[in-house]
Amino acid sequence: MKHFVTMQDLSEQEIYQLIRKADHISQNGAKPLNGQYFAANLFFEPSTRTKMSFVVAQRRLGIEVLDFMTEVSSVTKGESIYDTARTFESIGANVLVLRHSEENIARKLAEAIQTPVINAGDGTGEHPTQSLLDLVTIYQEFQQFKGLKVVIAGDIKHSRVARSNAIALSTLGCKIYLTGMDSWKDESLDFPYITMDEAVEMADVLMLLRIQHERHQDHLSLDQNSYLQTYGLTIDREKRMKKHAVILHPAPVNRGVEIDSRLVECDRSRIFKQMKNGVAARMAVMQSLLNQGGNFYEEDFNQRQAFIG
Amino acid sequence: MKHFVTMQDLSEQEIYQLIRKADHISQNGAKPLNGQYFAANLFFEPSTRTKMSFVVAQRRLGIEVLDFMTEVSSVTKGESIYDTARTFESIGANVLVLRHSEENIARKLAEAIQTPVINAGDGTGEHPTQSLLDLVTIYQEFQQFKGLKVVIAGDIKHSRVARSNAIALSTLGCKIYLTGMDSWKDESLDFPYITMDEAVEMADVLMLLRIQHERHQDHLSLDQNSYLQTYGLTIDREKRMKKHAVILHPAPVNRGVEIDSRLVECDRSRIFKQMKNGVAARMAVMQSLLNQGGNFYEEDFNQRQAFIG
Amino acid sequence: MKHFVTMQDLSEQEIYQLIRKADHISQNGAKPLNGQYFAANLFFEPSTRTKMSFVVAQRRLGIEVLDFMTEVSSVTKGESIYDTARTFESIGANVLVLRHSEENIARKLAEAIQTPVINAGDGTGEHPTQSLLDLVTIYQEFQQFKGLKVVIAGDIKHSRVARSNAIALSTLGCKIYLTGMDSWKDESLDFPYITMDEAVEMADVLMLLRIQHERHQDHLSLDQNSYLQTYGLTIDREKRMKKHAVILHPAPVNRGVEIDSRLVECDRSRIFKQMKNGVAARMAVMQSLLNQGGNFYEEDFNQRQAFIG
Repeated sequence: MKHFVTMQDLSEQEIYQLIRKADHISQNGAKPLNGQYFAANLFFEPSTRTKMSFVVAQRRLGIEVLDFMTEVSSVTKGESIYDTARTFESIGANVLVLRHSEENIARKLAEAIQTPVINAGDGTGEHPTQSLLDLVTIYQEFQQFKGLKVVIAGDIKHSRVARSNAIALSTLGCKIYLTGMDSWKDESLDFPYITMDEAVEMADVLMLLRIQHERHQDHLSLDQNSYLQTYGLTIDREKRMKKHAVILHPAPVNRGVEIDSRLVECDRSRIFKQMKNGVAARMAVMQSLLNQGGNFYEEDFNQRQAFIG
Repeated sequence: MKHFVTMQDLSEQEIYQLIRKADHISQNGAKPLNGQYFAANLFFEPSTRTKMSFVVAQRRLGIEVLDFMTEVSSVTKGESIYDTARTFESIGANVLVLRHSEENIARKLAEAIQTPVINAGDGTGEHPTQSLLDLVTIYQEFQQFKGLKVVIAGDIKHSRVARSNAIALSTLGCKIYLTGMDSWKDESLDFPYITMDEAVEMADVLMLLRIQHERHQDHLSLDQNSYLQTYGLTIDREKRMKKHAVILHPAPVNRGVEIDSRLVECDRSRIFKQMKNGVAARMAVMQSLLNQGGNFYEEDFNQRQAFIG
Repeated sequence: MKHFVTMQDLSEQEIYQLIRKADHISQNGAKPLNGQYFAANLFFEPSTRTKMSFVVAQRRLGIEVLDFMTEVSSVTKGESIYDTARTFESIGANVLVLRHSEENIARKLAEAIQTPVINAGDGTGEHPTQSLLDLVTIYQEFQQFKGLKVVIAGDIKHSRVARSNAIALSTLGCKIYLTGMDSWKDESLDFPYITMDEAVEMADVLMLLRIQHERHQDHLSLDQNSYLQTYGLTIDREKRMKKHAVILHPAPVNRGVEIDSRLVECDRSRIFKQMKNGVAARMAVMQSLLNQGGNFYEEDFNQRQAFIG
């Protein structure tokens, strides 16, 4: 693994390696890397949550953080992302974490430069560390993926994570279902659509998506409560979920829209556990890219293969 | 001490403990904490001075810093402070430093979450680490508080610090006087008002407050020099101060308004010493909250009680 | 060396010391300083490149970084640079790195305070760490300066670096030539002007300057391609350069304006090497100012003098 720009580059084996490494870190922590490394966090879009998660992950590994503030930077002087990345490479960055509004830009950058690139979300494209933390959270719950019924609910079309999660989870053996408003369907994904009422009774994992108000403020003037009643997770619907079913949400939550505010920290919610796992997931990715602890699970290969089946 | 949101939560003994711990750190430094800790600095209002003081305090203790920039954060996505705080808690923050324009919000947050909260100023409410550094500075000067005459001068009504200082210093045995424009009087404080001319001759400690232009820009169109002449510390008034009297100001100073610019660094000014003590005060608070060195002075209890009398 | 505000304060010997120290660091790295130091990066103008270079230099030396964001700071409360600097001094800064739009302000500040000041660019005045990194890059190429023909090309008049480079390189024995638009000539510099076509055939070192669009957006409405053809480095001109001649540019590059985009990373370009050297140059300056490793080359003095001739 030279870059981490999409889950779709990874084999099932590599995905499992990352999941188990992240799970291990989540439970046991990890030693700081040997030597001094620098990470450049190039966030061309604001995203406190993701950025702070990367910063914690970096500092837990002893990695120095270069915080690139696009609002106050020479990008205002019209410099390209390539030149910005080459600059950080030249001054000593060992890994670049890129967040940007333009779809597929992380891959383009990864193809152009030597330093490892981590995609921290590009446009409506990919957000693979978010996918990884979702996978880790599910793995911790069920210790495997085969046959799990996962329902992804909400704005599938504009979600960075929905598409890559659907594909990755399907590869790992889950049965994927989608639910949400008609206008938010993603025709490119070949999974069945169901209603929210069907979803809550069927799901082992209910992955709620965030309504990206900021992405489609024009064509959405939705009454929040009627959204919740029709498409969201109400108190009543939560009661009808399976005993061991869990709720995921990438946060920040629109309380009272995707989910009743009182359910955000309910027993089956894993929302804040996801955040905790996000740090471990990012540590696992950076450890691997910087070739430290990258072969941690090589000796487990046969067991894992037996396990995956 | 589980949170640090107001001086009024503390007993006289706890205040003394913090003062003496901060004084000790100010003179001798402190060792970094054992293990890796993270502080999240949640500044919803800009305050370079306070934030930088916390950062120095954190780094001197070896604490990792998470710098939350509200201007460029997902708070623009409408997330509540509670959810922001829970997020930082989930990704690993061990202490939250909160600065906010809303009065009493630090206490509300402290009641809602597990992670220690430090109030770094909320609205016109409390700013207890600023109070503590004032106390430390006075303590270093006089080695005690009993009978000291302290005059607090200026915009009492809108000052975070005036109220908590008045109460804390009174508890410690000081005699408190207030001075300032009529319209800035705070009727809820039961201390006598005097003129600035009386103040300079009486005070052992003259605590000047900053005029918060940004808080009442509407109803104040004051000629600066005439303010200085009537309510401020002029060269002439400074000459009439007692030999050992000292001047405090929380800074940034409006030079030529609260105080003649030439007096900012005069012999009896402790303004920059206050800033130095601010770092030590914040180190003492964080050390205590993170339960490291928290019992440093327990063995001194009897002596201290004898000392306080 | 107590401050570093202009190259013109330095003797030829001191310049050589810094160059060789930076060259040594560039090749061998440097140990972290003993003890905990704090640097305050006071950037009153945005400059990601320079700031990030300082941050890497600081962290490589183990120096703690205080990042002063003017956009969100109490400077909005009207505080002077002197008071800001004294504040950082009081809370524990050991070195101040100042970037500001006002010419000569770094020197004024250096004269007013005790803590070492590094000028990271003031107005159209000086930018001595940029000069130093240029000198280091040339030194690495030719191992000496005597008789080298250096052409400085572009907006001489508004360039922080052009003037100090011209003077420093001349002092070191280089022959300096200038080229550029008539309206950008700097009459205060006593070096011959030549055309770009003459320049490319004569230069051992071709120092391209950045067009500071943001500095003279009013009186420049230049067709970019015609600028490149008349004053810039085209593919054709590059072919006519001497075999060992090198290209320098302070970056960010306006691709297709000062230089054909395809030449930015050509064999004779040292543009990204300059950035790498910038970190080493800043490490050398901070090491010297903080009196650590400052006499590293004292024992080389005689050899160096023999070498300089």
